[in-house]
Amino acid sequence: MLDHLDDLHADLDAWLRIPSISADPAHAPDVADSAAWLADALRRTGFPTVEIWPTPGAPAVFAEWPSSDADAPVALVYGHHDVQPVDPPELWVHPPFEPTRVDGPDGPELHARGAIDDKGNVAFHLLGMRAHLAATGRDTPSVTVKLLIEGEEESGSPHFAALLEEKADRLACDVVVVSDTGMAAPDVPSAVTAMRGLADAEITLRGPAIDLHSGSFGGAVPNPLHALAQLLAKLHDDQGRVTLPGFYDKVRPLSDRERELMSRVPFDEQAWLAGPAASRATYGEAGFSTLERTGARPTAEVNGMWGGYTGPGHKTIIPAEAHAKVTFRLVADQRPEDVGPQLKAWVEANVPTGIEAEVRTPPGGVAPCASDLDSPAMDALLRAIGQAFDVDPADVLFTREGGSGPEADLVEVLGAPLLFLGVGLPTDRIHSPNERVLLPMLHRGAEAAAHLWRELGAMRPR
Amino acid sequence: MLDHLDDLHADLDAWLRIPSISADPAHAPDVADSAAWLADALRRTGFPTVEIWPTPGAPAVFAEWPSSDADAPVALVYGHHDVQPVDPPELWVHPPFEPTRVDGPDGPELHARGAIDDKGNVAFHLLGMRAHLAATGRDTPSVTVKLLIEGEEESGSPHFAALLEEKADRLACDVVVVSDTGMAAPDVPSAVTAMRGLADAEITLRGPAIDLHSGSFGGAVPNPLHALAQLLAKLHDDQGRVTLPGFYDKVRPLSDRERELMSRVPFDEQAWLAGPAASRATYGEAGFSTLERTGARPTAEVNGMWGGYTGPGHKTIIPAEAHAKVTFRLVADQRPEDVGPQLKAWVEANVPTGIEAEVRTPPGGVAPCASDLDSPAMDALLRAIGQAFDVDPADVLFTREGGSGPEADLVEVLGAPLLFLGVGLPTDRIHSPNERVLLPMLHRGAEAAAHLWRELGAMRPR
Ligand SMILES: [Zn+2]
Ligand SMILES: [Zn+2]
Repeated sequence: MLDHLDDLHADLDAWLRIPSISADPAHAPDVADSAAWLADALRRTGFPTVEIWPTPGAPAVFAEWPSSDADAPVALVYGHHDVQPVDPPELWVHPPFEPTRVDGPDGPELHARGAIDDKGNVAFHLLGMRAHLAATGRDTPSVTVKLLIEGEEESGSPHFAALLEEKADRLACDVVVVSDTGMAAPDVPSAVTAMRGLADAEITLRGPAIDLHSGSFGGAVPNPLHALAQLLAKLHDDQGRVTLPGFYDKVRPLSDRERELMSRVPFDEQAWLAGPAASRATYGEAGFSTLERTGARPTAEVNGMWGGYTGPGHKTIIPAEAHAKVTFRLVADQRPEDVGPQLKAWVEANVPTGIEAEVRTPPGGVAPCASDLDSPAMDALLRAIGQAFDVDPADVLFTREGGSGPEADLVEVLGAPLLFLGVGLPTDRIHSPNERVLLPMLHRGAEAAAHLWRELGAMRPR
Repeated sequence: MLDHLDDLHADLDAWLRIPSISADPAHAPDVADSAAWLADALRRTGFPTVEIWPTPGAPAVFAEWPSSDADAPVALVYGHHDVQPVDPPELWVHPPFEPTRVDGPDGPELHARGAIDDKGNVAFHLLGMRAHLAATGRDTPSVTVKLLIEGEEESGSPHFAALLEEKADRLACDVVVVSDTGMAAPDVPSAVTAMRGLADAEITLRGPAIDLHSGSFGGAVPNPLHALAQLLAKLHDDQGRVTLPGFYDKVRPLSDRERELMSRVPFDEQAWLAGPAASRATYGEAGFSTLERTGARPTAEVNGMWGGYTGPGHKTIIPAEAHAKVTFRLVADQRPEDVGPQLKAWVEANVPTGIEAEVRTPPGGVAPCASDLDSPAMDALLRAIGQAFDVDPADVLFTREGGSGPEADLVEVLGAPLLFLGVGLPTDRIHSPNERVLLPMLHRGAEAAAHLWRELGAMRPR
């Protein structure tokens, strides 16, 4: 179906040469160049409206191509044009901002920072739109297509929610198509159906008013480091479940259909342990598979812990304070704002005598988000992916993402349901040296987008 | 009994003006000056042999005054002429190295860094020796008196054991008199009978080979911070006892006599909590009082703990490593070298699947030390203190020190039993701003020393 593959490759090659690292202030001009390049590419593709939207940080790019059908639904594509830093540079086989073709076992690959996350996933929409128009013989798409491609995703999207609020009218849509995710394997087309949310907290335990000498006081007063160890040891029970009362109350259980589809996702646990997880064993909530644990179940993780003397040798103190940073991954329909009070009550109930606890839970957090598996839009997505990958739509598997960016903001501010269409692979080394994209996956992504606009155009959701 | 109190005061005033802070290299010349001052003072007192013994660090001072009685026992006084740093200087009411007389509720006080720890405790021996000779009408003391006053105690005595080994012949003695401790209260004369020892260890737990993203991996692989919390939470049982198998095997139980004498030591727990312990509650091994817990029972204390992200905000990682520094306070007859293997075996048995543990236990440590309560030397000490404080020797109470310096080295290298004669008070603020000595305690200390030489001279221990 696709013509103009060379255009896609040439476009991506040019875009990937711009080191749009949003976390590094020295690269701010590059992030601006990246936005300008994308705006130009969207204009070349034919989008009648293309705007660069400044923020207090890096600029976003907005584009709109209205359908000539008056009652056509509106789809908003979300992606980002900034990229991760490249540390450590010495581990890159090819320079990260000199895109390099490599012939791999699954076909030609393109190696560069951002090759899939997220420039590749955005770029396939340029070709997808042209293919859609060519295949349907239309001058305008079957749905009104908007794109919002932000420039700060790899820095935590600090200004994204405000931008959504400010531009809510322009961004109004019937469905959001998130293009920042992946599929299970080159021959296993799949759709992400959910992303976990996040709540974070910092726990401080205070014992003596000052660091005490353990010779004089050791064994006779409470040590906040002991108290912290005892507290955090209770954060999970022996089934690996989080012990905060109420924590699981709003968790939407996995449906049998979803568990069945997730169980068909090929997953080699030993290869996963030896590779990306770099771990000696799996661990987690009893009764769930590793993919279910990382995608469909909430967790509590201690991300940092400190207190007392941490330098060379020893210093025999009972420290005044002990600290821990804890984050919670949340699944639908948990609410990040519920976790703070749950944690505070739990700490209060479990802190030992003589220790004073403070729990700080910054406002915000990230809500979990999930697609509606039984919606017409999901049917359209599955049909589009099925056609692009030559499989029955019923054989398109479901996967879940363990973390998330600002996707939940899109749902909350715009009030539209989410679909996920991204063509990354677990082996693409996103955020790591030697990031790559498998070019055949990009081509399939463009085809899927072309089909998706047609399929969605056949819906009349309002 | 005492003449020449003014000499003692003048001497101490001069010595305390020398800021002999051994921990600060900038004060190395002052530590050397302090040694020279003491050597001169000992010569003025009449010691026929006075030598400054250099070490790779700060110099020690050795003095010897042989008894003319051929079979007189030999006593070695241990103390130190270096002092703690003065931080924070702004909390000192009087400049730390300008000794200042203050009239307090218990009599005149002298405020200065080192006023009691340990220049005061050493200085009273100058007057004590003169008083001893005057009282007995002798030209030489009733026992051969040696002094070894080191210059690095506040820096951990790094060269002390080697000095003892090198000079073992010169230091040969029948009893060591440690003058670096205190008594229960001005009107409660007491003798220290034991000091706790120390063993230290560092525990490292390793999980993933690299820090992992908790979105992608959280809930599915072991987190070394969780493992560390679970491990350290098991270090004590619910009775506050250390759980290492074998840890208590060699602990010498408290005798009924010692418990009874310790229980008579005045101790206001609420005042202690509000004051030096600066804590909200007591905590410790069930079945023991606070004084027993800090003096007579071994403990394990986590002194430091760290791992993962500890900066501002949050970073959602499962860290590769978690660390803890742990020290154990030991009592007679535990051995510091036993603790490492006990800890290693315990960690090995308690570390969860998927976590690799490393336990580092540096060689050395500090052996606990204790006086023999039933020895003739202890009887001599109790009689000497009783006479100096006008109480029956049977009313001299026993106390224990929770920590120790190099006292055990004296026992181990010189093979001599320990006595403790020091006149510090719990309220003297050693190691803190506004350190002071109560001058009447110094006078009593000099008297007790004078009596002690006579009492020991009446013994023939070999
Ligand atoms: Zn991304
Ligand atoms: Zn001292």
